[in-house]
Amino acid sequence: MGDLILDLIEQRKYSEARKAIVEMNIVDIAQLFEGIEDKQNLLVMFRILPKDIAAGVFSYISYDLQRYIIESVTDKEIKNILDELFFDDAIDFLEEMPSNVVKRVLKNTDEKTRKLINQFLNYPEDSAGSIMTIEYVDLKKEMTVKEALQHIKETGFDKETIDNCYILDNNRKLKGVISIRKLILSDDSTVIEDIMEKDVIYVNTHDDQEKIASLFKKYDLISMPVVDNECRLVGIVTIDDIIDIIDQENTEDFQKMAAMQPSEEEYLKTNVLVLAKQRIVWLLILMISATFTGNIIRKFNDLLQSVVVLASFIPMLMDTGGNSGSQSSTLVIRGLALGEISLKDVLKVLWKEFRVSCIVGLSLSAVNFVRIYYFEKIDLMISVTVSITLFFTIILAKIIGGMLPIVAKKVKLDPAIMAGPLITTIVDAVALIIYFSTATWFLGI
Amino acid sequence: MGDLILDLIEQRKYSEARKAIVEMNIVDIAQLFEGIEDKQNLLVMFRILPKDIAAGVFSYISYDLQRYIIESVTDKEIKNILDELFFDDAIDFLEEMPSNVVKRVLKNTDEKTRKLINQFLNYPEDSAGSIMTIEYVDLKKEMTVKEALQHIKETGFDKETIDNCYILDNNRKLKGVISIRKLILSDDSTVIEDIMEKDVIYVNTHDDQEKIASLFKKYDLISMPVVDNECRLVGIVTIDDIIDIIDQENTEDFQKMAAMQPSEEEYLKTNVLVLAKQRIVWLLILMISATFTGNIIRKFNDLLQSVVVLASFIPMLMDTGGNSGSQSSTLVIRGLALGEISLKDVLKVLWKEFRVSCIVGLSLSAVNFVRIYYFEKIDLMISVTVSITLFFTIILAKIIGGMLPIVAKKVKLDPAIMAGPLITTIVDAVALIIYFSTATWFLGI
Repeated sequence: MGDLILDLIEQRKYSEARKAIVEMNIVDIAQLFEGIEDKQNLLVMFRILPKDIAAGVFSYISYDLQRYIIESVTDKEIKNILDELFFDDAIDFLEEMPSNVVKRVLKNTDEKTRKLINQFLNYPEDSAGSIMTIEYVDLKKEMTVKEALQHIKETGFDKETIDNCYILDNNRKLKGVISIRKLILSDDSTVIEDIMEKDVIYVNTHDDQEKIASLFKKYDLISMPVVDNECRLVGIVTIDDIIDIIDQENTEDFQKMAAMQPSEEEYLKTNVLVLAKQRIVWLLILMISATFTGNIIRKFNDLLQSVVVLASFIPMLMDTGGNSGSQSSTLVIRGLALGEISLKDVLKVLWKEFRVSCIVGLSLSAVNFVRIYYFEKIDLMISVTVSITLFFTIILAKIIGGMLPIVAKKVKLDPAIMAGPLITTIVDAVALIIYFSTATWFLGI
Repeated sequence: MGDLILDLIEQRKYSEARKAIVEMNIVDIAQLFEGIEDKQNLLVMFRILPKDIAAGVFSYISYDLQRYIIESVTDKEIKNILDELFFDDAIDFLEEMPSNVVKRVLKNTDEKTRKLINQFLNYPEDSAGSIMTIEYVDLKKEMTVKEALQHIKETGFDKETIDNCYILDNNRKLKGVISIRKLILSDDSTVIEDIMEKDVIYVNTHDDQEKIASLFKKYDLISMPVVDNECRLVGIVTIDDIIDIIDQENTEDFQKMAAMQPSEEEYLKTNVLVLAKQRIVWLLILMISATFTGNIIRKFNDLLQSVVVLASFIPMLMDTGGNSGSQSSTLVIRGLALGEISLKDVLKVLWKEFRVSCIVGLSLSAVNFVRIYYFEKIDLMISVTVSITLFFTIILAKIIGGMLPIVAKKVKLDPAIMAGPLITTIVDAVALIIYFSTATWFLGI
């Protein structure tokens, strides 16, 4: 289907292409547009789309294409696009554009819209204000169901979502919420006040998007009102934006847990220098921290020189310790992020990790002993040393891995940094100290 | 608020407690119920709630509490709960109950419901069939808007979502979809067929939930129809379930990336033996793989014995290599999961990782050289050896880390297993071979 339309466009059969395109979903049209190689063709296609479809497609194409289109069309066309765009999509787009493009767009809006856009662009990044939209339906509590439905019919046309309607008083203060479902299922003469939900879950313009996402999850919402400091309704946040936020917060956690500075940009679209910068800082910190492990080994140089085979078990001990610790820290970080673990559970986690680590430690030490003593024919005392070290390393690694994320949260750091890489560095030092101390003791050197 | 009600319950002031409770959100009531220590009080409270609220609360409490309640109430009460529960919530609950509880519940339903429940319990886990609900609104294409709204009013009362209505023909085949918003905003006399969306995005009962979630994200949906093999509508999936699925899929990825077998259970609620089992398998595999790194070191025992200081840089080289590789693999795994990277991008990723690794490798090697030659006063040739090894290790680690997840996807493995722990084990061996070969060359031993 897409290829067929691309062919039609290539052959400049625009009206046939248009006919096929308008039947498609706007998300698919946007995807099709991304694949058009000749930018002139793209512009022609964009111009012959019906206005509302064009605006819908515009909100789904990449920022690069948005910028190309805005820079290529006339002022009047810019005004048309802006008029049709949902307000939050317009803000998303403007946030990514360079200032000269923003200026040109603002020039083509009326003063009221311009003021509103400026206000929205000023909300802190990742706040409710920056993700909300102004297209909502508001009702009054004195209205009957019939009047409310009539009001929606008259004013609801360009509202992004009318699944929930918000009841405001004369000062625009939020008094209640009613779902469109309840409206439709109620008798025409019922008064809104009698059927509206008064216990409204709302957020403030400056609340963080992570908090909003967790409220959506907790209460299974599909939209949520945003109020200012005087409790006046200023916008709503919708579920589609929340899903993007959940993905974004998870991506951030993945990045932090792999010792990177988080970034919202897509990997393939990110510049090499930016990618390198995101990665170098933590690698440097961790590399320099490894100085300690180097020093520990150097302190035991004499021991190593006389029993050089000890060196060959260092990687296995370090890796198993690091992996054990990462497992625990990952589960705890994830539990904290999903709200399944809270700060007061610290002792429960400690006790759980201790028992799990005993089982894991015993199993791995036993297998390891059999492997190196019977199969690799390593000296008995060395095999015992390695297995004992393994056992205690796993226990300490799991306890450190389970505790540090909670400690981080307690001191208001992001638990996600207490993940694999950092835990590994700490556990390395612990493992080496146990290893060489045990070896000194057992081998009597 | 919650504490106040708990006090009232403790003092057996049930009717006062009830009055306060019915004003609350059902999610909050469920949370309150989880905190009631005396199970008898809990049961009394549950019984005096209005039927619809009781069912709502029931769907939000833990499986343990659900089981306790079902095992404590009468057959008639079970029937009441079942009648009020949304169908998908009933299925969720039954899936977690032991068979004697399921039998008792099924005994208290009519034959039609029993058949339907059995059919739903038989859908494969994580398929569209297992997460869909049967509470949807269906219309006919010949209806006018007025007739449609009347039909919704008559039948929509216990539908979970009426935001979208589905248009079926006489064989229940899916012909179109219309949003309630469009219905309300259209003239009463308009015929549904003229305004319905014919290009419906739907899934089959056996489609995997991951696919469904990505369709929801792509098209910003809030509900999606599920059809059988004859394209007959059998249910709908709603956005609240999709959010749970997104969290669940992310948790699985986090667990796999930390070398654990994935589990859907909450950490604090999981038995210690189960937790240990999830972790041991991969730890054992990785520990035994470390035999190779041990063998590499043993092969160079003579070299190590004469220049024992070389051993002290092994942890730093291994960790930095492992961390570099994990960074790349995490970004690529995440990009693949979000659909931002596809298999055909393999060369783009390779070229990107190569350039990034050159920048990162050069920076870290330079800092490392200054650190160990000037500050730690290590011999020049050894400093050079360590820095060169670091440079090449980082390049290879990032290329291996960037490529393996794509290779895994190509051979239909889950890319998430090609994360930190496995990459580290591979990079360890690579780093050691480079290290000892370079050392042999530079130190002329």
